[in-house]
Amino acid sequence: MARDERGVTPQSEDFSAWYNELVVKAELADRGPVRGTMVIRPYGYRIWELLQADLDRRIKETGHVNAYFPLLIPESYLKREAQHVEGFSPELAVVTHAGGKELEEPLVVRPTSETVIGEMMARWISSYRDLPLLLNQWANVVRWELRPRMFLRTTEFLWQEGHTAHADEADAMQETLTALGTYARVAREVAAMPVVDGEKTAAERFPGAVRTYTVEGMMRDGRALQSGTSHYLGTNFARAFGIQYTAESGGQEYCHTTSWGMTTRMVGGVIMTHGDDKGLVLPPLLAPYQVVIVPIGRGDQAEQVLPPARELADRLTRAGIRAHLDARTHLSPGFKFNDWELRGVPVRLELGPRDLAGGTALMSTRLGAGKSAVALAAAPARLAAELAALQDLLLARATEFRDSRTVPVDHWAEFTEAVKAGWALAFHCGQVQCEADIKAATTATARVIPADGPPDQGRCVRCDLPSAYGKRVIFGRSY
Amino acid sequence: MARDERGVTPQSEDFSAWYNELVVKAELADRGPVRGTMVIRPYGYRIWELLQADLDRRIKETGHVNAYFPLLIPESYLKREAQHVEGFSPELAVVTHAGGKELEEPLVVRPTSETVIGEMMARWISSYRDLPLLLNQWANVVRWELRPRMFLRTTEFLWQEGHTAHADEADAMQETLTALGTYARVAREVAAMPVVDGEKTAAERFPGAVRTYTVEGMMRDGRALQSGTSHYLGTNFARAFGIQYTAESGGQEYCHTTSWGMTTRMVGGVIMTHGDDKGLVLPPLLAPYQVVIVPIGRGDQAEQVLPPARELADRLTRAGIRAHLDARTHLSPGFKFNDWELRGVPVRLELGPRDLAGGTALMSTRLGAGKSAVALAAAPARLAAELAALQDLLLARATEFRDSRTVPVDHWAEFTEAVKAGWALAFHCGQVQCEADIKAATTATARVIPADGPPDQGRCVRCDLPSAYGKRVIFGRSY
Repeated sequence: MARDERGVTPQSEDFSAWYNELVVKAELADRGPVRGTMVIRPYGYRIWELLQADLDRRIKETGHVNAYFPLLIPESYLKREAQHVEGFSPELAVVTHAGGKELEEPLVVRPTSETVIGEMMARWISSYRDLPLLLNQWANVVRWELRPRMFLRTTEFLWQEGHTAHADEADAMQETLTALGTYARVAREVAAMPVVDGEKTAAERFPGAVRTYTVEGMMRDGRALQSGTSHYLGTNFARAFGIQYTAESGGQEYCHTTSWGMTTRMVGGVIMTHGDDKGLVLPPLLAPYQVVIVPIGRGDQAEQVLPPARELADRLTRAGIRAHLDARTHLSPGFKFNDWELRGVPVRLELGPRDLAGGTALMSTRLGAGKSAVALAAAPARLAAELAALQDLLLARATEFRDSRTVPVDHWAEFTEAVKAGWALAFHCGQVQCEADIKAATTATARVIPADGPPDQGRCVRCDLPSAYGKRVIFGRSY
Repeated sequence: MARDERGVTPQSEDFSAWYNELVVKAELADRGPVRGTMVIRPYGYRIWELLQADLDRRIKETGHVNAYFPLLIPESYLKREAQHVEGFSPELAVVTHAGGKELEEPLVVRPTSETVIGEMMARWISSYRDLPLLLNQWANVVRWELRPRMFLRTTEFLWQEGHTAHADEADAMQETLTALGTYARVAREVAAMPVVDGEKTAAERFPGAVRTYTVEGMMRDGRALQSGTSHYLGTNFARAFGIQYTAESGGQEYCHTTSWGMTTRMVGGVIMTHGDDKGLVLPPLLAPYQVVIVPIGRGDQAEQVLPPARELADRLTRAGIRAHLDARTHLSPGFKFNDWELRGVPVRLELGPRDLAGGTALMSTRLGAGKSAVALAAAPARLAAELAALQDLLLARATEFRDSRTVPVDHWAEFTEAVKAGWALAFHCGQVQCEADIKAATTATARVIPADGPPDQGRCVRCDLPSAYGKRVIFGRSY
């Protein structure tokens, strides 16, 4: 298969190679000098910034305030919650020396902040009037990864972590589901990822959580990507850190806490949900450039075309469209077309002397087959409509893909086939050991118990015991 | 001196106690569990977010793009630039273990990112067409502090660090001064801090820089706060990391690089530039709440007042004003007045049944003596004008204060007096040893060679040698 040097291995040929090459060639990210670290380049960081701005707005609209807690945490803090330390110990980076001396107590670089935030919450909360305490932080975290993959599993990643404290379970559970709902909406409405939301099985819970909820997306290779999680922590961390309050009745009570996070992994999710053989396909709401204008013509012609092209870019910008004029003179239009295709720009406009004479530009979209003329006078409105339609189309296309690869199965043979190509909707007994057997046999795991799955019962697809959960569970291979 | 439990030690009595108490009592920040670390609480973080949003916009408007580089840097990288490693070695936090194993090479937690960004720039830049490369990153950095002070010197702090690469010195110097200008404008126009911008003397340069520029603010105790710095790095880091490009002529050239940063220290600058005996005084542009509405009346009266108070808050919010209704029922209006005064809210509105009957609210500002009636119908426009006037007034007041404590001196006795209360404008010989002598004798250092200082010459205020720099230098004690 012929491909120019800017191209990538086709997705259909080798998904993993496609992904790794694309991340680098589209200049989303680069490998960092330390194994497992990543440099997020401006084009990739802009995608994150756009997602972040939207998510931050929604987090604030649901009553949370941002704060910032220290990166370095005393090692002893992690040990106060037994499951928590067991889960995170293998992944910790530890600072043993600072200021030229060995530290008395080693400090861990935060892998997540329940412990240090729990410590501070205990200081700040004294009365029922202080509740709920609804905090969020935007931060970097470090988890030592043995099998790093850019955006999906890196030694350091960026995220927001919500941490809240409540008077009782009901309030904390409502919060846990509010955060989950925010994640589901951001994924669907902004990233055009048709995630399935619901609870995790016990085996897949966050270390220290009583219940873990997730939004799971299906990538174009059929694998699941955990795209955001929300945890009801019960009183586990409240007991470990002494987060107590005086109730209205006068008694001392432990708070019920939650935590929830969404990460730069979402950039990987966008790549793998929408990308194709030619490269990235960016949802307009997350595209650094929504419209790229490529001037056509060389020499004198180029000089003639540039001023109106610039004027067009300015008009689109004023209309709130992220427009970019590719004025590079040393590259051919054909090179630029391929370049922006690889980089997933939703809409391309070509502007040559003949178009200009006719008062039009030639439009093509990243998904469409042909080109069509757009009247320059009406360009802002026309492009805004086109971008909105593309955003919807991407969600619809991804939903269709997901549904086509989500198969209800009742027999083991069907199950093993289904999880090779996508997701199996299967009954499960709810036993941790049975889940482990399934994983050992197929590498597939229980991804989510879908919140909107219809009530249903049957026999476990693996061990034939009666099903748990009152509905089918989604199993799949995952990132 | 009587003061209630919410109050703070008066600024005039003990500036340092005033600052430390205020930071905690106004809920701007709290000490973290590890010595020297700080937790930025929501009220303090919001000030930073508002500053950050403005600074980020200006950084982007001047052509820079955001990216993100790894937190952990191989220790050997720092050693590649001799002055750089000498300057930062004593302050490093070092990760020696990760993933349960001792690392082959220790990793430092970034104290600044010239090294790792230099390494990546070398990979990305090959031709003159790749220049200038204008990057910025928002990040946390760690520098082990022996004398920590919240917001001013903490083991970890938040900042942006700009890093750029250019074809030649002229272009890099222009960039260095562009960044400095951005800092000066943000400080003056947003933080209402009348900073003096200019170059640092050789003794005060960033480790590895050829020239360092600064914006210096005067705090209300007369000390200087370095509030942002911009460095021309020459080819020092380009040579250490191999940042080279092929010139249009075909030759291989080293890039000229710059770096520049502004930090959460600015929150400390705002506190110490504007605060008074009663607490914080926040410039409206950085105030989390610009207007607080306090309902007056108890029981039935309160219920009567709350709906129109809520409606007023909504109208102000829709007009783009950050308004907050203090609807806490267990606290008296008097307590609330003191509370919001301590927390520096620019404008307070009292709304009681009688005000309501007259269609007005009672307004007082954080700086004004009396109260005045504001027609509810005209409130949004009236308050917007009041906030703009307060913003201007704070800058004017701080400028007057700074000027009143900046004294041209020609004799050593005058010098030592001047730097006790503020800044001395003095001739200096330019010798590093003479600067060190001045510091040893007075604790004052050369803060800045003011960019707009008139050309002038004389004899060094300390050693009587002919003056360097062609103008007077600002000396002062600093944070």
